[in-house]
Amino acid sequence: MNIKVGIIGGSGYTGIELLRILHQHPEAEVIAISSRALQGKKIAEVFPSMAGLSALIYSFPDDKSLNDCDIIFFATPHGVAMNGAGSFLEKGIKVIDLGADFRIHDASNWTRWYNMEHTQNSLLEEAVYGQPEVRREVIKSARLVANPGCYPTAVLLALKPLLENRLIDCSNIVADCKSGTSGAGRIANQAMLLSEASESFKAYGVGGHRHFPEMKQELELMAGEVIGLTFVPHLLPMIRGIEATIYVDLLDSSVDVRPYFENAYQNEEFVKILPEGVYPETRSVRSSNYCQLAIQYVEHSDKLVIMSVIDNLVKGAAGQAIQNMNLMFGIDEKTGLSQIGLLP
Amino acid sequence: MNIKVGIIGGSGYTGIELLRILHQHPEAEVIAISSRALQGKKIAEVFPSMAGLSALIYSFPDDKSLNDCDIIFFATPHGVAMNGAGSFLEKGIKVIDLGADFRIHDASNWTRWYNMEHTQNSLLEEAVYGQPEVRREVIKSARLVANPGCYPTAVLLALKPLLENRLIDCSNIVADCKSGTSGAGRIANQAMLLSEASESFKAYGVGGHRHFPEMKQELELMAGEVIGLTFVPHLLPMIRGIEATIYVDLLDSSVDVRPYFENAYQNEEFVKILPEGVYPETRSVRSSNYCQLAIQYVEHSDKLVIMSVIDNLVKGAAGQAIQNMNLMFGIDEKTGLSQIGLLP
Amino acid sequence: MNIKVGIIGGSGYTGIELLRILHQHPEAEVIAISSRALQGKKIAEVFPSMAGLSALIYSFPDDKSLNDCDIIFFATPHGVAMNGAGSFLEKGIKVIDLGADFRIHDASNWTRWYNMEHTQNSLLEEAVYGQPEVRREVIKSARLVANPGCYPTAVLLALKPLLENRLIDCSNIVADCKSGTSGAGRIANQAMLLSEASESFKAYGVGGHRHFPEMKQELELMAGEVIGLTFVPHLLPMIRGIEATIYVDLLDSSVDVRPYFENAYQNEEFVKILPEGVYPETRSVRSSNYCQLAIQYVEHSDKLVIMSVIDNLVKGAAGQAIQNMNLMFGIDEKTGLSQIGLLP
Amino acid sequence: MNIKVGIIGGSGYTGIELLRILHQHPEAEVIAISSRALQGKKIAEVFPSMAGLSALIYSFPDDKSLNDCDIIFFATPHGVAMNGAGSFLEKGIKVIDLGADFRIHDASNWTRWYNMEHTQNSLLEEAVYGQPEVRREVIKSARLVANPGCYPTAVLLALKPLLENRLIDCSNIVADCKSGTSGAGRIANQAMLLSEASESFKAYGVGGHRHFPEMKQELELMAGEVIGLTFVPHLLPMIRGIEATIYVDLLDSSVDVRPYFENAYQNEEFVKILPEGVYPETRSVRSSNYCQLAIQYVEHSDKLVIMSVIDNLVKGAAGQAIQNMNLMFGIDEKTGLSQIGLLP
Repeated sequence: MNIKVGIIGGSGYTGIELLRILHQHPEAEVIAISSRALQGKKIAEVFPSMAGLSALIYSFPDDKSLNDCDIIFFATPHGVAMNGAGSFLEKGIKVIDLGADFRIHDASNWTRWYNMEHTQNSLLEEAVYGQPEVRREVIKSARLVANPGCYPTAVLLALKPLLENRLIDCSNIVADCKSGTSGAGRIANQAMLLSEASESFKAYGVGGHRHFPEMKQELELMAGEVIGLTFVPHLLPMIRGIEATIYVDLLDSSVDVRPYFENAYQNEEFVKILPEGVYPETRSVRSSNYCQLAIQYVEHSDKLVIMSVIDNLVKGAAGQAIQNMNLMFGIDEKTGLSQIGLLP
Repeated sequence: MNIKVGIIGGSGYTGIELLRILHQHPEAEVIAISSRALQGKKIAEVFPSMAGLSALIYSFPDDKSLNDCDIIFFATPHGVAMNGAGSFLEKGIKVIDLGADFRIHDASNWTRWYNMEHTQNSLLEEAVYGQPEVRREVIKSARLVANPGCYPTAVLLALKPLLENRLIDCSNIVADCKSGTSGAGRIANQAMLLSEASESFKAYGVGGHRHFPEMKQELELMAGEVIGLTFVPHLLPMIRGIEATIYVDLLDSSVDVRPYFENAYQNEEFVKILPEGVYPETRSVRSSNYCQLAIQYVEHSDKLVIMSVIDNLVKGAAGQAIQNMNLMFGIDEKTGLSQIGLLP
Repeated sequence: MNIKVGIIGGSGYTGIELLRILHQHPEAEVIAISSRALQGKKIAEVFPSMAGLSALIYSFPDDKSLNDCDIIFFATPHGVAMNGAGSFLEKGIKVIDLGADFRIHDASNWTRWYNMEHTQNSLLEEAVYGQPEVRREVIKSARLVANPGCYPTAVLLALKPLLENRLIDCSNIVADCKSGTSGAGRIANQAMLLSEASESFKAYGVGGHRHFPEMKQELELMAGEVIGLTFVPHLLPMIRGIEATIYVDLLDSSVDVRPYFENAYQNEEFVKILPEGVYPETRSVRSSNYCQLAIQYVEHSDKLVIMSVIDNLVKGAAGQAIQNMNLMFGIDEKTGLSQIGLLP
Repeated sequence: MNIKVGIIGGSGYTGIELLRILHQHPEAEVIAISSRALQGKKIAEVFPSMAGLSALIYSFPDDKSLNDCDIIFFATPHGVAMNGAGSFLEKGIKVIDLGADFRIHDASNWTRWYNMEHTQNSLLEEAVYGQPEVRREVIKSARLVANPGCYPTAVLLALKPLLENRLIDCSNIVADCKSGTSGAGRIANQAMLLSEASESFKAYGVGGHRHFPEMKQELELMAGEVIGLTFVPHLLPMIRGIEATIYVDLLDSSVDVRPYFENAYQNEEFVKILPEGVYPETRSVRSSNYCQLAIQYVEHSDKLVIMSVIDNLVKGAAGQAIQNMNLMFGIDEKTGLSQIGLLP
């Protein structure tokens, strides 16, 4: 099979990451890439890692070459895919939105968090939240996939075995999350300068972050009940990686939760449970599509702590999108995604 | 006044930090420094920042020059100050231990966490836990001060106003803490190599960390009741700084806690409360003795989040020790400690 | 003495560095600070390290408060001080320009490199190039000082003993220089994002950099002849620090140059010559006003290598400016500048 | 084809990098890995990026499983391959030494730089210096390949077109080189701690570095005459990457050297010449086997500057070794090496 891929909004880190991973994919090829700002530029002028390795040139987002694709990835700010997805779907082209437009099922909730009217209610209804470990079968037959946010990916995989097996008190979940600066994108931004963001650490969005409603929605679907979730993101002085440290109360402290994690993920290639006493490091999954999880019961305070790491640009974005693409086209889910994390 | 200072165990980061800060102190002077391993070496051979700036030479820890001091700082691993402090105190020399030997009042609890018998029960009883913002008056008349650990300093200052005013549920406190690598010291250690620890983030000591019993002891003294505390430390890919994000439940959600923080610290030079919506960054206090605090009530989960940052080597070690020294010698607590954080 | 200081263009790293260092200066006080963009903002809103430590508010650059100063520091892009300095000088207020407007004596040469007409020829003639180790006496009586660029400071101090003693071939000097990102300022700039500039290294401005004509001018003044200089700057993945590795050919290979360096700097507080076999690290002078130099003769290629490190924001900018201010006001040159480098 | 690979000395960064790259190689498989220190440990216990991805267990270096291999990679300190290679060669097993034992043809020169007698003169004579872009055909038929050092790889590729075409003055070449800390290996080493090596930059080995004789030997083979080379390595505050900035004098300044570079590398997959005015960044080749080169003539000093970047662990070690392996087994040289650099 040769899947023809188009990327809309290919000027950012998600764009180059799609290009990097698909370069290794034996059954897909990027044939068109667009960016309003970079129109006419060669890829290697924008991303010097591509020097001598691609003849692709940025087109305008309405370029006809996109219509020759089998699938379109939207790597755009919110609001773009919402209006652009429909015309591709009508032509029989599948769509994966790496942005936020189709992640939240409730249009009014989306509007509240994104300060924008949602204009595509029927697409919103159709879109599938694309976490393969949660709803693989539905993704296989989807036309339109909402690729999960980076923080939600890390948190949802960590809590799934606990919620689906009703092992914890759902009213008191704390997710303390940390992300590298690549999550903030490739836009010039004073706060993300090396001189500002390196050698420092801080919380942000404490009162409310746009990944909160998405997490809550999905956790409640897993749990079948209302969730009390506190989510605080932090900025790490490094480029790639997300770590989530999650604090929950077991309903029955005597239960050993490890077997539930092992059962949940025994057939999942991209989720690895670490041995007792080993805690995950973000670098272990740098550049790879893996999620590593660890579980630790803290005796002196009777809390269960779950730790989860992903590469925010791979399992948290481009890698998971390609995993979804593979499912949508009926090929092996792991195709093109077998790279081991870059260590050191 | 000219306070003659001796440092025992001056080969590590706490040692050089004491030297750096005291170099700016108008009323104190380091006249002796010892290190078993570095005996005979010039300071500048060990710390190249001192090139041409000090004639000090490392002596053995039992060198007579230490007896000419007015105060001895122990910057040693646990177990050293325990046995060495007594002879100085007998000679009328004050002692501040920057290690852990006198922080935990209960000897058997200390033994459990440090795997070593505590041999100096009477000194343990006499020692004052040296957090100036908590027990300034007692420190002023102390002979032997146990300088607080770095994580406890950040957490205790964050919770003091809440516990002393009985505003929170003491049974469910989560302290998610992060530290730069300088907290692990200057010892060759594979896990702390730049190639291993940079561009990565991980939790450690999740099941139990030696700063836990110290935090719990002091929090319970503040609260007057038993505390349920979960403390998870993490390693940041940077040199200096600690951030603590602390999650608590208010007993009465309608209470505005900000005035309690402002009252608690209005006369404290070294604790600053940030305005609403501003969250502290570790770099803001890099190289300085300040602690910056922020408070954020999270409406959708009914949690109060407190954030606290310090420089682990200054307010978390050498700076707080000098603050204690100033108090013990009756001089202005702020002397030598007025440096602003190094930004950028 | 109480020197009243004003800062024009206080929104950048040079501005906050002047504030940080002057906060420790016993005989000077910043009474006015201006920034067109930040007018009306409190300093701590811009630089969070200042929280609770200053009541200063940014004014417009033409605010009357600046006229009450004894000295004005221009920390502005080129072109600003050129037009603004005169009116202060007329009022008897001294001026130090930390920008580039008065560094190059030849107006047409300046115009060629800065793409702007130089409109103040008489000021240009009057301005003194402010490197205290080179022309201390002239600075003492100057009204208008051109503070040297960061790269030139590191290179000039490294070559002064060799050129003044006519020890090297002046036609073949290579200066391979490296700077942290703070040299690029606090402006939002995609290339300086942590995600772009960390974990990477590159040369820039290879064909020509604005510090080249300044270096060449001063080196030729030292040598008394034409200099053949190749200067290549590089960007380091870190915040502060400049290192210059300089390659020269000795006129007589059998000469030991070390005594010439020691003689040249024996009375200079801020230049330290490292012992044989020890090479300078930028961190050794981080946050301090020191320059550390090392000399190594390479036998198998008959080259002399000189290495020089400074903190680009201190000895390379704000610190050297304050050193100049001290000279201009007749107080001890070292006042307020005794901080040791922050290590680690 | 299925090439069975063994790795001796698999505990370091070269070892894990061979594992990482070979994991993507469709025609080779690592069947044995040894490490004296790690015998009996699972790979994932040592390199957490391998969690759940390999059943390999470290054996002793004399384990019989190594005899079942088609090729052995020695990733060992100097002195090990020298004595171990022979017995594999006798069994018809090919050998690539990623260490230094067979790089220098002259045994007495080797002894001088490595402080050890060379005991295998006939192997030394047989060994091929494995730079594919220089002697591809000889490598194809070699039994024993000396894989080039990281610094030499970057410098030799930069100078080859100039030396082979006799365009420069060979007596005055300056190679100012910079490397990330991964070049110093995975050994616990105080100077390589994050707290010591990050946020800093320094030269080292200025008087003489072991890669000097190797560079000089190969440059002289290219030039056919004696070379005057000054090589100064520096340590970068980052993990991966080498940059070399090389200064040479053209014999004829009017010659445009670009066509010589383009001709030299037009058929080379792994060497890319950047366009005029674009300078290479180490991150562009992070995790990839590419070398990027740029050329800049500096008019005002009549110097030619060549810049070269590689990933020291890939083109500077494991990647080039696999490129050599491909050649030795007659398969496409690029097999398994098509990964694009990880950016950001």
